Amino acid sequence: MKTISQAKAFGGIQGVYSHESEACHCTMTFAVYLPPKAATEKCPILWYLSGLTCTHANVMDKGEYRRLAAELGIIIVCPDTSPRGDGIADEPDNWQMGKGAGFYLDATQAPWSKHYQMYSYITEELPALIADNFPVDMNRQGIFGHSMGGHGAITIALKNPQKFKSCSAFAPIVAPSSADWSAPAFEKYLGADKTSWRQYDTCDLIADGAQFREILVDQGAADGFLDNGLRPWLLQEAVKDKPEIALTLRMQEGYDHSYFFISTFMGDHLRWHAERLYK
Amino acid sequence: MKTISQAKAFGGIQGVYSHESEACHCTMTFAVYLPPKAATEKCPILWYLSGLTCTHANVMDKGEYRRLAAELGIIIVCPDTSPRGDGIADEPDNWQMGKGAGFYLDATQAPWSKHYQMYSYITEELPALIADNFPVDMNRQGIFGHSMGGHGAITIALKNPQKFKSCSAFAPIVAPSSADWSAPAFEKYLGADKTSWRQYDTCDLIADGAQFREILVDQGAADGFLDNGLRPWLLQEAVKDKPEIALTLRMQEGYDHSYFFISTFMGDHLRWHAERLYK
Repeated sequence: MKTISQAKAFGGIQGVYSHESEACHCTMTFAVYLPPKAATEKCPILWYLSGLTCTHANVMDKGEYRRLAAELGIIIVCPDTSPRGDGIADEPDNWQMGKGAGFYLDATQAPWSKHYQMYSYITEELPALIADNFPVDMNRQGIFGHSMGGHGAITIALKNPQKFKSCSAFAPIVAPSSADWSAPAFEKYLGADKTSWRQYDTCDLIADGAQFREILVDQGAADGFLDNGLRPWLLQEAVKDKPEIALTLRMQEGYDHSYFFISTFMGDHLRWHAERLYK
Repeated sequence: MKTISQAKAFGGIQGVYSHESEACHCTMTFAVYLPPKAATEKCPILWYLSGLTCTHANVMDKGEYRRLAAELGIIIVCPDTSPRGDGIADEPDNWQMGKGAGFYLDATQAPWSKHYQMYSYITEELPALIADNFPVDMNRQGIFGHSMGGHGAITIALKNPQKFKSCSAFAPIVAPSSADWSAPAFEKYLGADKTSWRQYDTCDLIADGAQFREILVDQGAADGFLDNGLRPWLLQEAVKDKPEIALTLRMQEGYDHSYFFISTFMGDHLRWHAERLYK
């Protein structure tokens, strides 16, 4: 692991690091915020998965998570959204496919399968690296994210309910198999047989019996992607007869899809996670 | 005035606007955050001046000022740091001169004097535009900034003590006439006669009798520009025999020159200004 940068912030340390990923066969970059408390004891870890076009840096710069993470004693890890580098398959003119659009799945189709193994990277390889290099309490993990990263956070929590104590999302893509901006990517990454897509689709996972105790979702009511991409009402429908999944869906009047929306509700989400991580 | 973008944030509105500047003879862009309170009544206004290389956008994205500005009921205006556009004098390879480096002064030397009139722009033209277009209480104005913008904030407050109720700075350049990264720019903008530089130099202004009631300065002790550019001890020296200027200088252990530093202490500064703006 290589240290790219470290800066003191709110009494803790905002760092950026890179390493050679075996899962993605390339150099991967990620950000870690250590609260002041981490200087003397292990802290819970909260994973933030970003949306289409983002790297680790967008939420680090604009997410406004450090003040409360410092106060609550939570380590925040922000991975990249895809493999990066020369010689890695991409569709440079398509922001919904390839670099910046890994969709947190393990691709099975050439040429994507060689590098696009984001599910394995996020759930196995990166946690092992983090556990080895930072003062984390791996028994207290939460996960959240935005848009494509909200999709990643909820699907990963549903598939690993014992690993995570908490899950939330800002404007998640809840049914990527049928959404305009994700279905074409799913076909390229996973092939035409849609049965293999179900394990990476929140609504399908729930229909197939996956469970997670509680999910908090904030969604801007003025979000331009609401109708053709996000469709939170499909998630509401999916959990209707599933009392084992407590969904809190909050439509936020006037808010769009930007970091202005994310940063506004970041505090609520950090408190939600802290209550469950420190229980 | 043209609206570039508006987004809801912390219950208020973060907007970006542009207009044709007469002072700078070009299109100028600026950001305005309106707290929720501004929907129903006029609010105090706090000017944030940014540092070298920045536009209006850096602090808007990374400064983390909206949460408290919303809570305290303060309008935040973030201007650009120089004129911009084709045909405007510049030294593209020099980040300390030209675009992004206006130093909040009125240039007198060709070719700079045609567009680089940032002092007049910030103190006259832009306030008039803001007063005409936003629900601001112009009797309650404060000013702060970072680095070159900290220099701008303090010099402008010292030259207009009746106009501003409050002044603070993050890592300001307190003696630009003799600092490595500003003296060459001062010579190009203002000419070789250094007497004309004194009106844009905090320490010289104070030596020449300028006053402002209270100044809050936060300075990172691990700032890489401390010794050759910022030198806050010169400000401390300048006010030593000036009981009419109450300087609070706080050296912040371990902090650098970045927005991680600014955002950490943004809350303290907003509260400092709010106490004085609402007195």
